[in-house]
Amino acid sequence: MKQEIRICGFGGQGVVLAGHVLGKAAAAYDGLTAILTQSYGPEARGGAARTEVVISDRSIGYPRIVSADVLVAMSQEAFHKFREDIREHGIVIVDPDLVIDHQVERKTYRVPATRIAEELGNKITANVVMVGALTSITEVVTRDAMMQSVLETVPARFKDLNRRALEAGFRAGEEARSVEATLALTGE
Amino acid sequence: MKQEIRICGFGGQGVVLAGHVLGKAAAAYDGLTAILTQSYGPEARGGAARTEVVISDRSIGYPRIVSADVLVAMSQEAFHKFREDIREHGIVIVDPDLVIDHQVERKTYRVPATRIAEELGNKITANVVMVGALTSITEVVTRDAMMQSVLETVPARFKDLNRRALEAGFRAGEEARSVEATLALTGE
Repeated sequence: MKQEIRICGFGGQGVVLAGHVLGKAAAAYDGLTAILTQSYGPEARGGAARTEVVISDRSIGYPRIVSADVLVAMSQEAFHKFREDIREHGIVIVDPDLVIDHQVERKTYRVPATRIAEELGNKITANVVMVGALTSITEVVTRDAMMQSVLETVPARFKDLNRRALEAGFRAGEEARSVEATLALTGE
Repeated sequence: MKQEIRICGFGGQGVVLAGHVLGKAAAAYDGLTAILTQSYGPEARGGAARTEVVISDRSIGYPRIVSADVLVAMSQEAFHKFREDIREHGIVIVDPDLVIDHQVERKTYRVPATRIAEELGNKITANVVMVGALTSITEVVTRDAMMQSVLETVPARFKDLNRRALEAGFRAGEEARSVEATLALTGE
């Protein structure tokens, strides 16, 4: 079992933190191995930010994500930049309010993470909503592991907000799965 | 210009933070591009921890550090694990109090970062002493960029301690350079 996950968006959305909690959930709580790659440079200063996480049940050599199993896109620019790099059986998860144009020849899940986070009181947690959705859509890590990882990572005073964000993300992922399944059945 | 730097040690030494301030110095303050790779998993839980930073003056594709230009080793175990993966013209920087056995067929610089950090009052800053030494030995980033990066990264109340640690690291790197040059001249 090896899953390569690319999370991308714009600077300030917490894309690297999202990758970090995912890697930590896998390694510290699910007994897997994870490697995270993050970029600095022009990309990391406002443009399209990205992080890649490779998760495996065995030791990982050197990561080289050229094509991903899962692409999570939180901005239109990042989506356009990375849309090509998805495996044939890979999936796409987008925030449809930020990635308006997201037609691809891949299984696509729509998770309005930023709107959900705003409804919970702080759109800064959109990244946590998104990793919650990623968790329930892909099951690459367990929900328990992800919850522990998030709560271990965020400052004490934000724990409650982030717990609610993650739970909302789990539910949003389930909804996105059932919508995707319905669209697949009706041939859309 | 492309430099691949591996920093390794044991968990808790701040190896990933060292990589992060290096990547940030390069990208945010020296106008270069940097990619950092970090591992989670058994390695990240106490054993040999490592992080890799690729720094370039142009865009970097996908990082795959198999052999490094610079190996910084802060533990004996990490040194043994990664000593083979150094380019022919690569260099090694070790903390000689922690890496007692460090003979390699490469240019080797000895920086007693942990002892220096202890003398400054807190051995937790050994990683910052080490990136300071790395900076003056390799000049892969400028000292100004590294100072800004460190001060931007550490909490406000630790700024002064870390400023002193970094300056001590710059000096320790200069000393290690002159010792290495002398040994080379005398053929040792």
